[in-house]
Amino acid sequence: MERMKVAVLGATGVVGQRIVAMLDRHPWFEVTALAASEGSVGAPYGQAVRGRWHAPGEVPEWAAGLPVVRCVPGVDARITFCALDANVAGPIEEAFARAGYLVSSNAKNHRMSRSVPLVIPEVNPEHLSLLAMQGYGPGGIVTNPNCSTTGIALALAPLHKRFGVSRVVVTTMQSLSGAGYPGVPALAIAGNVIPYIEGEEEKIEKETVKILGNGDRPAGFRISAQCNRVGTTVGHLATLAVELERKTSYEEIADAFTEFRPLTAHDLPTAPAAPIALHDDPSRPQPALDVDRGRGMVLTIGKLRPDPVFDWRFTLLVNNLVRGAAGAAILNAELLVQQGLAT
Amino acid sequence: MERMKVAVLGATGVVGQRIVAMLDRHPWFEVTALAASEGSVGAPYGQAVRGRWHAPGEVPEWAAGLPVVRCVPGVDARITFCALDANVAGPIEEAFARAGYLVSSNAKNHRMSRSVPLVIPEVNPEHLSLLAMQGYGPGGIVTNPNCSTTGIALALAPLHKRFGVSRVVVTTMQSLSGAGYPGVPALAIAGNVIPYIEGEEEKIEKETVKILGNGDRPAGFRISAQCNRVGTTVGHLATLAVELERKTSYEEIADAFTEFRPLTAHDLPTAPAAPIALHDDPSRPQPALDVDRGRGMVLTIGKLRPDPVFDWRFTLLVNNLVRGAAGAAILNAELLVQQGLAT
Amino acid sequence: MERMKVAVLGATGVVGQRIVAMLDRHPWFEVTALAASEGSVGAPYGQAVRGRWHAPGEVPEWAAGLPVVRCVPGVDARITFCALDANVAGPIEEAFARAGYLVSSNAKNHRMSRSVPLVIPEVNPEHLSLLAMQGYGPGGIVTNPNCSTTGIALALAPLHKRFGVSRVVVTTMQSLSGAGYPGVPALAIAGNVIPYIEGEEEKIEKETVKILGNGDRPAGFRISAQCNRVGTTVGHLATLAVELERKTSYEEIADAFTEFRPLTAHDLPTAPAAPIALHDDPSRPQPALDVDRGRGMVLTIGKLRPDPVFDWRFTLLVNNLVRGAAGAAILNAELLVQQGLAT
Amino acid sequence: MERMKVAVLGATGVVGQRIVAMLDRHPWFEVTALAASEGSVGAPYGQAVRGRWHAPGEVPEWAAGLPVVRCVPGVDARITFCALDANVAGPIEEAFARAGYLVSSNAKNHRMSRSVPLVIPEVNPEHLSLLAMQGYGPGGIVTNPNCSTTGIALALAPLHKRFGVSRVVVTTMQSLSGAGYPGVPALAIAGNVIPYIEGEEEKIEKETVKILGNGDRPAGFRISAQCNRVGTTVGHLATLAVELERKTSYEEIADAFTEFRPLTAHDLPTAPAAPIALHDDPSRPQPALDVDRGRGMVLTIGKLRPDPVFDWRFTLLVNNLVRGAAGAAILNAELLVQQGLAT
Repeated sequence: MERMKVAVLGATGVVGQRIVAMLDRHPWFEVTALAASEGSVGAPYGQAVRGRWHAPGEVPEWAAGLPVVRCVPGVDARITFCALDANVAGPIEEAFARAGYLVSSNAKNHRMSRSVPLVIPEVNPEHLSLLAMQGYGPGGIVTNPNCSTTGIALALAPLHKRFGVSRVVVTTMQSLSGAGYPGVPALAIAGNVIPYIEGEEEKIEKETVKILGNGDRPAGFRISAQCNRVGTTVGHLATLAVELERKTSYEEIADAFTEFRPLTAHDLPTAPAAPIALHDDPSRPQPALDVDRGRGMVLTIGKLRPDPVFDWRFTLLVNNLVRGAAGAAILNAELLVQQGLAT
Repeated sequence: MERMKVAVLGATGVVGQRIVAMLDRHPWFEVTALAASEGSVGAPYGQAVRGRWHAPGEVPEWAAGLPVVRCVPGVDARITFCALDANVAGPIEEAFARAGYLVSSNAKNHRMSRSVPLVIPEVNPEHLSLLAMQGYGPGGIVTNPNCSTTGIALALAPLHKRFGVSRVVVTTMQSLSGAGYPGVPALAIAGNVIPYIEGEEEKIEKETVKILGNGDRPAGFRISAQCNRVGTTVGHLATLAVELERKTSYEEIADAFTEFRPLTAHDLPTAPAAPIALHDDPSRPQPALDVDRGRGMVLTIGKLRPDPVFDWRFTLLVNNLVRGAAGAAILNAELLVQQGLAT
Repeated sequence: MERMKVAVLGATGVVGQRIVAMLDRHPWFEVTALAASEGSVGAPYGQAVRGRWHAPGEVPEWAAGLPVVRCVPGVDARITFCALDANVAGPIEEAFARAGYLVSSNAKNHRMSRSVPLVIPEVNPEHLSLLAMQGYGPGGIVTNPNCSTTGIALALAPLHKRFGVSRVVVTTMQSLSGAGYPGVPALAIAGNVIPYIEGEEEKIEKETVKILGNGDRPAGFRISAQCNRVGTTVGHLATLAVELERKTSYEEIADAFTEFRPLTAHDLPTAPAAPIALHDDPSRPQPALDVDRGRGMVLTIGKLRPDPVFDWRFTLLVNNLVRGAAGAAILNAELLVQQGLAT
Repeated sequence: MERMKVAVLGATGVVGQRIVAMLDRHPWFEVTALAASEGSVGAPYGQAVRGRWHAPGEVPEWAAGLPVVRCVPGVDARITFCALDANVAGPIEEAFARAGYLVSSNAKNHRMSRSVPLVIPEVNPEHLSLLAMQGYGPGGIVTNPNCSTTGIALALAPLHKRFGVSRVVVTTMQSLSGAGYPGVPALAIAGNVIPYIEGEEEKIEKETVKILGNGDRPAGFRISAQCNRVGTTVGHLATLAVELERKTSYEEIADAFTEFRPLTAHDLPTAPAAPIALHDDPSRPQPALDVDRGRGMVLTIGKLRPDPVFDWRFTLLVNNLVRGAAGAAILNAELLVQQGLAT
C-alpha cells in the first residue's frame, strides 16, 4: 500500500521531534517535509536538531538528511502535523487549511473554536463532524488537547459515560518537557516546585468539558485545576477527586477503567489495545517507572480509593510528549484516515 | 533569669538536630541532655552527627561536647522534647511523663489519644487543658501535628473561625526531609515523584479536625488528602480547594489570613509576629524561595483565587522541619511555660 | 541448540536485576535459578523485586515466577553469575567454585587474587588461562572489573597497545546506581556532589594495571584516580589526561579508538561490533544522551584533544550497570563458552 | 566616616544581584546607582528582579526603590562594579574608565590585557600597579578571575610560594549558577552532567598563571583543565593533582593551606580571617554543606593526600557567586581603597 504524504510544522521543537521519531516506519504515513522557523530553514534536519535532540534513540536517517523548509503551504503532503509554538501557530494553521491541507494540530490556538474538533480518538471521534463547518473544502483543522487535559479527559471519559461526573478537583505535577526547550531554567527548578504554569489551569477546565460534551455543548460538570511544575523530565502526574452522579462500587469503577477499549486494536496503528492501565500498587503510577507504558500511549491510573469529600479519588500519569502531544496528533491523523476524511 | 532545663530525645535525627539548632541561645531553655538510640550512646554529640548534620550552620559548641545518653528518665530536665521515630516513641514518652517530665512530642504515637493535646499555639492553645486528664501528676504529653497537617490546619484556622469550613480537598507535594535520614533512596526519587507516603493522608484527615475541634469534639468538616513525595529538600507544598459555610469576598479571605495574629509578638520567643504571609505573585510560594520566611516559622500562602468547584483555592508552603516539626515542638514547650504549666 | 544452564546469585539487587533482564531470550544461556539473601528466599522473584525493579521494562515472565533460592551450591547450572554484595560474596563464590561451578563474578572480593582472571573480553581474554591455577577442577572464578575501571581500562587498552601509556590522571563523576539500592540517600545528594566513594579510587588504580598487564605482571604505568558521586542515575563519566610513550597525532589516536574491534561481531552475543564510539561534538558524551549506546555495551569517548600537561585528554562515559557490571559478567561467561572452558 | 559612592553595572543578573546583596550595610561603600540593560531601565530595581531574585533573603529596601539606569558614565560614583555579560561588558568598562571611574569587573573581557590587573587580594595585590599603565588618569579597570580560576589560583598560591608548582591537572564540577540566568535549561541537565563549558578550560589555564606570575610574566608551570557542568545550584568543586618543585610532607602542605593568611582580619571588610579551610573528613568538601563557609568567602579544601602520578592531590570547593564573583569584585574594590588608589 502506498503511504499518505505528511509534513511536520515546528519539527525542531521537543514535540515536533517526537512526532518525527514516532513517524519513523509508520505504516500509513510518509514524511515528505519538515518545516520550522527561519533560523533552521535550509539546514539538514539532523544538523538543525544537533545537540538538542530529545526523542529516544538517534534522529531517523531519512529525517536527518531532509532540508528544513519554511512553514508555508506548498509542501507535498495531504496532512500536516503542527507542533509550532502558540505565538505563531494560529495563522499558519489557517493558511494550510485554506490551501487544502488537513492540519492535525497540537497547538492551543484553535482548540476552543466552535467549529474545530478537539479530539481524543477513544473519547469523542464523532466530533470530527465539526470539520464540515470550517468551510476549508478539503482542508481543515483538527486539534488534540493540552498534554494534561488529555490524561484527565481520558480518565474521566469512562466514568462520565457510565456514572455521570458531576464535580472534579484536580492537582497536577507536570514535567519539564511540557514547557518545551529551552523552557524552564535549571536554576529556577533545582530543588524546587513552581506552583504556576501560565494558562494551564484554564486549558484543563475548558478543554475537558468540550471533549466530554455533545457536539458544541460542553459537558455540564464543574472542574477545578491547580497546576504545578516539578523537576521530572517526562510524564505529568495528577491527583483527582471525583463526584459521580450515580453511586457505585470499587469494582465497577475499576471495570470502567480497564474495560474502556473503544477502539479495536487494529483500528489505528498508534492506538494501544487498552488506553488505560489500572495499577494496584499504592505507590504507583510513578513517572520514572510508568511513563513509557504502551510506548507512551497508555494512561496509568493508581491509588483508586473512596474519597471522604466526593466519591472517588485516584492518581493518573500521562506521557505528556506521546499520549499528550506527538502521539495525540498522530492518532488524530490516523482517525482522519480511518474515517475517510483524508482522501 | 534562670533558664529552664530541657532534654532532647532522638537528638541525632533530622528533626532532633533541628531542635538542637533552634535551642541554641534560646532565651527560656537550657539543654542539659541529648538522648538517642543505643548506637550513639556515649559518643560526644558532635561525633554522633558527624557527616549527617542537616541543620543550617555548624553543630552548636555546647552541643558538640555533650555525651549522648540513653532515652530513659533520669535526665536533669523539666521538659523533654521527643523527636524519636514512631516505632519507639510511644512507651518512651509515657515513661518520661510517668516520671514527672513534660514531654513536647513531635511523634505521631499519642497525637490522636483523647487525653493528649494536639496543639498549634496560635490555633488551639486551650487544648492544653486536656493535660489534666492524663493522670501523670506534674508530667504529661503534649504533641504537635504532622508536618503537613501543621500547614493545613494553620491555614484553615482563620477561615474556619470567620466563615466556617465545610469541605476541603488537598494535595501535597512533600519534601525529602519529611522522610528523615536516610529516608528516600536517591535512586527512587531521581527524576520522579512518588505518589505515596505511608499513613500521611490519614494523619492529615484526622489531625486537622482534632486541632480545629472543640475540646474532644473534632471539627465537623470533611477533608480529603492526597500526598506525594517530590525531590525538594525542605518545605511541603499543598494545593487546597475549600468550601465555606458563609460566602465571602477575596478581601475578607485575604484579611482573614493576614490579620491572623493570635499571639502578640512577645508572648512566645519562637512565635513569628504573624504566622501567615499572603503572597500576591502568582508563581509563589516556592520551596526554594519561601521556605525560610520568618526563620521557617511563617506559612506562605499564594495563588488565592475563586474555585470553580468550591469557593476558594490556594497554595501553601510550610517549612516541614521548622514550623512542622522542631519549631512546633519548641513553640508548644514555650506555651506550656507561658501558661504556667511547666513550673 | 540446547542452551547452557546458568544461575544468578544476588538476583534481587540492582546489578542482579540487570543480569536477569539481559539474560531474557539469551541465545546461549537459560536461567534455571535465581538466588538471593534470606529475606527473599521462597518468594517468587517477581514479588521479591516488586516496587524496586530498576531494569528497563517489566520483569521477564519466566523470571517473575521463579522462586528465589538460597545462595548455596546445588542449583542446576554450569555457570553462576555473582552479583552479591562484597561483604558476603567471597566465601559464597569459593563454595560454588569448589562445587564445580564456573562463577562469573561482578564482586570485588577475588579480583586482585593472583590466580583469578580479571577480564574484559576485548582487552585481556588470555588472562582466562589463570583459571587452571585455581585448583577447583571444573569450577573456577572469573571476575569483571569495577564499573568505573571497566570504562577506563577499555579506553586505555588501544592506546597502551599502540603507543604505550606511561601516566594517567583520571577524575570520575559516578551515577547513583553504582551504589546499589537503597544506596545513596536522596537527602545526601540533592543539589550536591559527594567527592568520595569508599575504596573506589584504589580499585581503579589497582585493577586497571592488572587488566592491562601481562600474565601476573601488572602494566607499568602510573595512574591516579579521584572519584565523585553525582546525581545522575546511570552512567559513569570520567575525564582523563594521558601521557604516552610514543608521541602521536590526533588521527592516530582517533583511529586507535575507532578501529579497536578485537572481537568479530559474531564471536560473543553480547559484544558490540565496536566497543568504543568516538564522538566529535565537544559537549558529548553525556549520561542522559549516550548511556544506552550499543544497548549499554559501547563506551563513548569525546572531547579528545591535546593536553597541556601530558599528551592527550578526553572524556569517557561507561554504562555502569551494563558494560560495567551485568553485561561485563555476561560477556565473560560468553567468553568462557567460546573458549571451550565451560563444557 | 562617609562611605564611598559606588554603582553596579549589570545589577539585575545573578552576579549583579549578589553584589547588591553583599553591599547591603557595607561599611565602606554606599550604592548610588544600579544599572542594567535597556529592558529594565526606568523600573524600580525591586520590580526589575521580581520573580528572578537569586540572592539569599529579600531585595534590600534601599535597592528595591532605586530606579534602574543605563550603563553609561554619569552616575554619581567613584567605583563601578561590573557584572555585565561578556558580550557587552568590554566597551562599557572602557567608557567608564575613560570617564574617570574605577571599574572593578567580574567580566572576562579585559582580564588577559597586559595592563589590566587580574587580582585576588590575598594572592597578588601588587598587580594593582599595572593600573598606572592604563592611561585612564583617575579611572581604570581591575578584574577578578573567572569563578573556577579563583578557587584554583587561591589553592595553588600558598603551594607555589612555598614549594613551587610545576604541573597541575584539574577537573571541575561546576554549578548551574555559574551559567547565569536563565542559563542552563532544566531539560538539558536533569539527570545529566554536561562535560562542556564554553571557553572555561582556556580561562582557567591562562588566568591562573597570570595571577600567580610576576608582573607581566606568567607563572611557569603547566596546567590542564577539564570542565563539567553538574546539577548543583551554587559552588564549583574541583579535583586537582599537583606536582611540586620541592618535595614535602603532608604536614607542610596542610600548614601551607591553613597558615595562608596574607591579610590581617581588619584589612578589608569582606576578607575572611583565613581564606582557606582544610577539612579532614574524607567526604568533604560538599557543595550542599560547605559552600557558605565564611559567608561564601572561604575556600574549602579536603581529601589532601599523596598522588600516585604527581605529588599531592586534593578537592576544593569555591562559592562561585561569592568568592568567585560578587565577593571577588567587592574585595578588589576594598583593596583599591585600602591601597589609596580610590581617592
